[in-house]
Amino acid sequence: MAPELARLGHIALETPDLADSMEFFHDAVGMEEVERTADTVYLRAMDEFAHHSLSLTERDSAGVAHIGWQTAEPEHVEQYAERLTDMGVDVRWVAEDEERGQGDAIRFEVPHGHTFELYFEMEKPDPPAERRSRLRNRTYSPTTTNPVAPRQIDHVQIWDPNARDCAEWLQEHLDFEMHERYNLEDGSRWGTFLSASGTKIEAAVIQNESGQAPPAVHHTAYTVDGGADLFEAGDAMKEHKVPIDGFGQHSISRGKFLYARDTTTGHRIEFNDGGYLVFDPDWDPIEWEETDLDDRQWLGGLTPGNAVHY
Amino acid sequence: MAPELARLGHIALETPDLADSMEFFHDAVGMEEVERTADTVYLRAMDEFAHHSLSLTERDSAGVAHIGWQTAEPEHVEQYAERLTDMGVDVRWVAEDEERGQGDAIRFEVPHGHTFELYFEMEKPDPPAERRSRLRNRTYSPTTTNPVAPRQIDHVQIWDPNARDCAEWLQEHLDFEMHERYNLEDGSRWGTFLSASGTKIEAAVIQNESGQAPPAVHHTAYTVDGGADLFEAGDAMKEHKVPIDGFGQHSISRGKFLYARDTTTGHRIEFNDGGYLVFDPDWDPIEWEETDLDDRQWLGGLTPGNAVHY
Amino acid sequence: MAPELARLGHIALETPDLADSMEFFHDAVGMEEVERTADTVYLRAMDEFAHHSLSLTERDSAGVAHIGWQTAEPEHVEQYAERLTDMGVDVRWVAEDEERGQGDAIRFEVPHGHTFELYFEMEKPDPPAERRSRLRNRTYSPTTTNPVAPRQIDHVQIWDPNARDCAEWLQEHLDFEMHERYNLEDGSRWGTFLSASGTKIEAAVIQNESGQAPPAVHHTAYTVDGGADLFEAGDAMKEHKVPIDGFGQHSISRGKFLYARDTTTGHRIEFNDGGYLVFDPDWDPIEWEETDLDDRQWLGGLTPGNAVHY
Amino acid sequence: MAPELARLGHIALETPDLADSMEFFHDAVGMEEVERTADTVYLRAMDEFAHHSLSLTERDSAGVAHIGWQTAEPEHVEQYAERLTDMGVDVRWVAEDEERGQGDAIRFEVPHGHTFELYFEMEKPDPPAERRSRLRNRTYSPTTTNPVAPRQIDHVQIWDPNARDCAEWLQEHLDFEMHERYNLEDGSRWGTFLSASGTKIEAAVIQNESGQAPPAVHHTAYTVDGGADLFEAGDAMKEHKVPIDGFGQHSISRGKFLYARDTTTGHRIEFNDGGYLVFDPDWDPIEWEETDLDDRQWLGGLTPGNAVHY
Repeated sequence: MAPELARLGHIALETPDLADSMEFFHDAVGMEEVERTADTVYLRAMDEFAHHSLSLTERDSAGVAHIGWQTAEPEHVEQYAERLTDMGVDVRWVAEDEERGQGDAIRFEVPHGHTFELYFEMEKPDPPAERRSRLRNRTYSPTTTNPVAPRQIDHVQIWDPNARDCAEWLQEHLDFEMHERYNLEDGSRWGTFLSASGTKIEAAVIQNESGQAPPAVHHTAYTVDGGADLFEAGDAMKEHKVPIDGFGQHSISRGKFLYARDTTTGHRIEFNDGGYLVFDPDWDPIEWEETDLDDRQWLGGLTPGNAVHY
Repeated sequence: MAPELARLGHIALETPDLADSMEFFHDAVGMEEVERTADTVYLRAMDEFAHHSLSLTERDSAGVAHIGWQTAEPEHVEQYAERLTDMGVDVRWVAEDEERGQGDAIRFEVPHGHTFELYFEMEKPDPPAERRSRLRNRTYSPTTTNPVAPRQIDHVQIWDPNARDCAEWLQEHLDFEMHERYNLEDGSRWGTFLSASGTKIEAAVIQNESGQAPPAVHHTAYTVDGGADLFEAGDAMKEHKVPIDGFGQHSISRGKFLYARDTTTGHRIEFNDGGYLVFDPDWDPIEWEETDLDDRQWLGGLTPGNAVHY
Repeated sequence: MAPELARLGHIALETPDLADSMEFFHDAVGMEEVERTADTVYLRAMDEFAHHSLSLTERDSAGVAHIGWQTAEPEHVEQYAERLTDMGVDVRWVAEDEERGQGDAIRFEVPHGHTFELYFEMEKPDPPAERRSRLRNRTYSPTTTNPVAPRQIDHVQIWDPNARDCAEWLQEHLDFEMHERYNLEDGSRWGTFLSASGTKIEAAVIQNESGQAPPAVHHTAYTVDGGADLFEAGDAMKEHKVPIDGFGQHSISRGKFLYARDTTTGHRIEFNDGGYLVFDPDWDPIEWEETDLDDRQWLGGLTPGNAVHY
Repeated sequence: MAPELARLGHIALETPDLADSMEFFHDAVGMEEVERTADTVYLRAMDEFAHHSLSLTERDSAGVAHIGWQTAEPEHVEQYAERLTDMGVDVRWVAEDEERGQGDAIRFEVPHGHTFELYFEMEKPDPPAERRSRLRNRTYSPTTTNPVAPRQIDHVQIWDPNARDCAEWLQEHLDFEMHERYNLEDGSRWGTFLSASGTKIEAAVIQNESGQAPPAVHHTAYTVDGGADLFEAGDAMKEHKVPIDGFGQHSISRGKFLYARDTTTGHRIEFNDGGYLVFDPDWDPIEWEETDLDDRQWLGGLTPGNAVHY
């Protein structure tokens, strides 16, 4: 069996001020702190069964360390390492627990400069008794947390100076599937919407409009429980004086969204609801032309802004 | 590569009065009629990309014809046919389009009498211009349909006189994965919650409490867009004088639910919201004991009632 | 007892093309047609107990005929007529049923040119049997109508060349209460938010930024059942190619909103959810300064556009 | 002008164990503690502008001290005192601040033993800076509180051994209006649904089925922001091991509900959403007969249980 990725697992972010960024990710957004080391805090969303889906590490400046993908089987990490090394990609092994909770992993750059991590093993959270849910299919009880707290990691949006090539490389070498794509009037590809799990959009690969700009991450999306929760999320962001960079519904994916930004770093969280699930094995990619609709947003809109570099 | 099932695709139901049952499935529940033959109506839910997810065929009495599963690859239908024939299972081939919109398929009984169908090919819906959505990732526009209309098929609940054996057979021979299981105080298994897609519960296999009863289907579940929609669904069912057999939230799967019943046949639809997605390849099945909670329902409750036989 | 207004009752709008405007108000927005005369259609929202809350009359051009307010007691119509006549206001009596379903009424202009109507008697809707709800506290069953159909009329927003004087006149002579007011940095009043019922905002009186512009109506607001329904409403508007002029949450009133516009006339409907109810008899008006927040909208935003003149 | 009541203001409850009851009202239900005296805690809901809407006083046993109604004008307290005294009702004056935050008030028994309090003056909450909302029309910021926290007090349900007489006395002497009433098959009145504010149901007066039982309160209802929040409320109650006594939608009032109970005292909170507002001055009371529907609940159901005596 050829190696496969199972799902988007986590994102590792960097901040020049961990305490300030925790005011955003923990106090405002409502993520749960799972564990803390000398320079890193590990966070999870409410309905996740893995140790963490986001980490914050203190560094000189804001940045993205890597995007982590869980393989379908344990041996796929090694198999991908071989495949990538054979292709001339520089693969670095990350020892078990170098990233807390995680087994042996590999890190490498994909075109044109995004750092990906592949791993299979990840600890399950073990909540203290007073935080444990009465339900066996829920880990922590969410009842004392922020009402708008994210439920599960959903996707990342990455910006690339040559996004179509990046997306095609991911399809060819890491076995991502294309679920939607969007072409501009000049025929060039603006965005490709990929999935590792085969069931939803997990990586949106977007053309960085300034061709010289380095590869970057625009946002990490987490699900919430319904459209009404996006208003609640907006309310919480505003009360915490967190800037909101967009609110509405995307045409692509049909996801409802609210973007909130950590002013310390520029990292964005998307609160996301809805869209559709693709379990169909005979899925035909959705092909959008720029002229199909007046606006890429079906409802509401976005405020332009930069993505954060690696 | 070993054959795999991709997802629950559709259920084929029988009714002694097609017009009466359409009052339930179409007028009250809100499903869309896609196509009609001499004795059968094919229906789909609002956010589905396949020809149909439910069919109603006029027969002498109410019954379940089969439960349809889509394979991961076209050649898996043949591969399963071989595997099952080798095991002594009586496999019948169903020619392309015998079931409208569908390619070659196989039908067979799984223990202890449930009729399953496996297929890969299924037409995509081609809506008339006036019903077509402006969004390329949506087929029909839902704006003129029932507000509580189902979104996507989610799972079936089947009752079996020896449910644990049935579930284990499905895991062993059709490669279902177990996501949750529930044991009674006497140590016996009451329910096993399986998935073909690997990402959610698609078949709940429940012990028929009267051991002599034949295999049956209790309900077919469809997703809606949020908890508030379950109240809307209840409202619509009541205005249509449709009996409601349960309303609340399950402990298992954490799905919120409302059960509605076609009085002509006893077939039930579950309007379902929430629960969780299992993309994790290292999922540990959730193991419930009867004593874990006072009630199998986390919230609200069910009215006891029969399932419909094949 | 001094006369009092009980509530905002209805708005009478004019259109050069009744059929086109019905595509907006009926087909897209989802209002129910109650009755039709030679030149007028009377419409109601889903949870209203009065004959109509909006009428559309065919005239040479788009316009607002009047805004109707129901008095607290039958004799208050006459009492207001006397008061206004004594003040030199030109009061015209409207005979019973000149406006369908309505008893004797008066019409007059308030500064600076808005036509108000006061009435007490209004028929109750009498739905045909097949449209009657099973619930005695609901008139028509909503189950076959648009899911985003308005529930109850909520407020009107009027634009005035001297809005503060207009608002103060309404407070002094028609006994409106002020619930909120918003001042610009130069100390001038931008908006006054009044209630006739004393329990919610029913008339927003806004400074027309071009001082020479005639009095006008920017929108008529109807409630929906929750924040998620605003996304549904947006979806329905988009599928019907109806322009959306705003989506988000107001700071003033805290109402969540979506504005949709009839392209034939420029008349706007606001789908509105939330905000707060003021039952407190000792309410202190909320006083906003322009510098209190970065934006008058707490979340999302508005597209500038004209209001429709009388 | 005759005196009038403006609205249901608060309920004063008694508990043998204040700390235990605060685990219910504060920790689980999510009400905010405003102030605390030697034996009493004052609580408010999230969207209220008055000092408190519920108080808990430590006493030997669970009980209801009184139900507080705010008058429409300051002088109405005195006017009601005179009217009631003239009728032979024993009226006791309560000095300003005897109940924290409140001006001069009167207390008295209405048939057949319910203690009512009338007052006009009530302090507005003055939140500490770190809890203050950025919105001037909101007092405390809710962002750090329980997501299911009540929004505003809505109604009380009282049980009476002769409920019809009780209701008629309230209509005649305290100027309550009847919005709905429900008759049993034997022609007797089961429930009368009254409003002081004239715009919603604020007091449900229910026939105590055991005729000899003393007057009691079954529950105090608070609004939440939508139907989905009732599922959230249920989730929070279950995680806190709080018993739930009902979940669904009432036919009368069309309110969606979830009942939760303080096991220490038996006091119940209803989380309530929806229903309708009656601004119509010409409202015809809704008249239900027992045979109109199969069940008093439109959806879901109730668990029988006792009310708490005065």
